[in-house]
Amino acid sequence: MEIAKIAKEASLKIADLSTDIKNQALLKIADEIELHKDEIFDANKQDLKDAEKLVETGEITKSTFNRLKLDENKMRDMIQGIRDIAKLDDPVNKKLLERELDNDLTLYKVSCPIGVLGIIFEARPDVIAQISSLAIKSANAVILKGGKESINTNKKILSVINSALEKVEGFPKNVIQQVFSRDDVAEMLKCDKYINLIIPRGGNNLVKFIKENTKIPVLGHADGICHIFVDETADIDMAIKVVTDAKTQYPSACNAVETLLIHENFPYKNDLLGALELSEIQLVSNPENWAHEYGDKILSYKTVKNVDEAIEHINTYGSGHTDSIITKSIENAENFMNKVDSAGVYFNASTRFADGFRYGFGAEVGISTNKTHARGPVGLEGLTIYKYKLIGDGNIVSDYASGTKQFHHKDIK
Amino acid sequence: MEIAKIAKEASLKIADLSTDIKNQALLKIADEIELHKDEIFDANKQDLKDAEKLVETGEITKSTFNRLKLDENKMRDMIQGIRDIAKLDDPVNKKLLERELDNDLTLYKVSCPIGVLGIIFEARPDVIAQISSLAIKSANAVILKGGKESINTNKKILSVINSALEKVEGFPKNVIQQVFSRDDVAEMLKCDKYINLIIPRGGNNLVKFIKENTKIPVLGHADGICHIFVDETADIDMAIKVVTDAKTQYPSACNAVETLLIHENFPYKNDLLGALELSEIQLVSNPENWAHEYGDKILSYKTVKNVDEAIEHINTYGSGHTDSIITKSIENAENFMNKVDSAGVYFNASTRFADGFRYGFGAEVGISTNKTHARGPVGLEGLTIYKYKLIGDGNIVSDYASGTKQFHHKDIK
Repeated sequence: MEIAKIAKEASLKIADLSTDIKNQALLKIADEIELHKDEIFDANKQDLKDAEKLVETGEITKSTFNRLKLDENKMRDMIQGIRDIAKLDDPVNKKLLERELDNDLTLYKVSCPIGVLGIIFEARPDVIAQISSLAIKSANAVILKGGKESINTNKKILSVINSALEKVEGFPKNVIQQVFSRDDVAEMLKCDKYINLIIPRGGNNLVKFIKENTKIPVLGHADGICHIFVDETADIDMAIKVVTDAKTQYPSACNAVETLLIHENFPYKNDLLGALELSEIQLVSNPENWAHEYGDKILSYKTVKNVDEAIEHINTYGSGHTDSIITKSIENAENFMNKVDSAGVYFNASTRFADGFRYGFGAEVGISTNKTHARGPVGLEGLTIYKYKLIGDGNIVSDYASGTKQFHHKDIK
Repeated sequence: MEIAKIAKEASLKIADLSTDIKNQALLKIADEIELHKDEIFDANKQDLKDAEKLVETGEITKSTFNRLKLDENKMRDMIQGIRDIAKLDDPVNKKLLERELDNDLTLYKVSCPIGVLGIIFEARPDVIAQISSLAIKSANAVILKGGKESINTNKKILSVINSALEKVEGFPKNVIQQVFSRDDVAEMLKCDKYINLIIPRGGNNLVKFIKENTKIPVLGHADGICHIFVDETADIDMAIKVVTDAKTQYPSACNAVETLLIHENFPYKNDLLGALELSEIQLVSNPENWAHEYGDKILSYKTVKNVDEAIEHINTYGSGHTDSIITKSIENAENFMNKVDSAGVYFNASTRFADGFRYGFGAEVGISTNKTHARGPVGLEGLTIYKYKLIGDGNIVSDYASGTKQFHHKDIK
């Protein structure tokens, strides 16, 4: 795939770009999007016109249509988001370790970009600006594939981004590229020689499809089957408050709770269930749904014997996303947090806190349920890896193998 | 695959085991191997007897045969290696971040095991004790597949390990399991539901086969095409010393140099090449070999115009392992280290330093050329990931969304 090869070359050129040039590029993009926003709205109107027909024929849902639509608020947030990324610390070139191996031999572990990111996203066209900005800040090249429903908007935004980048002295070409067809996606997924990380942004069908069809590492989550376990000693008011928030504050979010587990000796079970029904939450107790993500104001519930049964249920049916215990027992809370094998394990808090901005990362690349590289809400750091720099004075291994010289391994910081 | 499911269950049980029990387990394993070493030698003799025939028929090489052979030295090193791992810091449960999101809401990022490791290794039977010890220390479950040539030794060592573990109170069952056939390997590679990381230990054909046949993340490297670039201003004595060490100190190591790049204005080119030939290094200048790993005292060489051509050559033909520049120019060295896209980028040092022990990690899981998770020599830390623990007092997101409460994101450490 030619475009992937070009991206790889661009990634090598952007890798050691100064923080200053990267931030100039981000601010220029924000300015140019602001300047050309009417053209972007026009392109979006074309997409919306086409999408209206698809809503009528049932090919896309009304909520997809809404995500597709850019308005003044989304435009303002998008532009502000880019400027916010410019303000964040540069995640590249951070000294993670500095160690003298010997007097004249020093090892540095330094953060650096991953290389080429493949981003596959669905209808939301504002993603294109956000993810391009994250890629620039972390010095990665990127190949974007947006939803076909937003093709005109995506093309327009990308052309504004790239014409902005051309105006920034010293910024390499081809850092942000775009592909359009399903065939291109199939090609991308095969390009493990050039693409180092795939980030899908969209529904679980998209993520599942991608995870099943590539050997490239995928950063993301397919399912968000989050649990709250209400322990025997839980405060009833806190339980009602937290479960209601976790289910209703934004039911279609991946960190919304899907299953409520209740200790069999919890004395206020009926009060809890009654209160949830008053908040218009539909309660279901059907084992077939233990691994079901409703994304709606529907909640599975189950009675369990104790915290260990709750942990086992979560590790069996959960998706390793975010799970919470409501209890007064610190012992049970620690047991729960240590044994539940999820990215987020919470004690007396709503699962909805699982989010890069709420965690204070300043940006969110996505939420990962992976067990390697990056887990949970991922900030800019998740788009970096590291390299080791070793600075010597002609040092050779045979001196150390023979015992002529000895390593002293002294950490400088 | 039943064994993978069992491993997953065991991984959940070992995940929060105390440092003390893990270290007890390691010391017990070391003691029991010492106690039963004669039985292990007997099993090894059986393997060697079978292997002798394979050497005669040419099915295995003499060097494979040598790697297969356990002697008193290897046995002592193996036992000492286990005791050394017991002495290392526990890589699990390290607080990587502690941040107040609000007065009563604190986020902890804590290291934890990855889960289930699949280890596929070739003839060296001492790997089984080493990798089992690393898995125990990092609280991961493991499925081992050794070479068929060492089947008796592997079975015996594993039975000693598991009988030692049974004697350790509180240590869960099935943490270390073994499979034997090629079909088992094929099954393992499909088990992305249960196995979280595959670590191949062996030649590049093994690693390539595995990387091409699984969606599970693979930690390792297929090739070690390492380069040394001798810049215009390089000290001739240093160049001779470093290149000779990098090629001859252990020619079959993955961090041995394979290609020498020489600046066209380097005035001592002939002296350098002559000195290398005196060290019995065979010099080859054939573009077909630019991506060839000799693993022997053979060295490709090429003249380049400048540091940028050297960087481009390395990024085109290298394997992202370890590359070094010999120069007096700090500017060229920095350019080289920033732009060469390899796990190790060295300045006036032999590529042979790329090693977990030499870096001071105390243990080496392997060397990775991956661009995600772990890169370069990987210590115990590479067998861990992290989870986020959030401790609140009934906190809900809607309070923050509505502006009733504000995050203050204050790092505690």
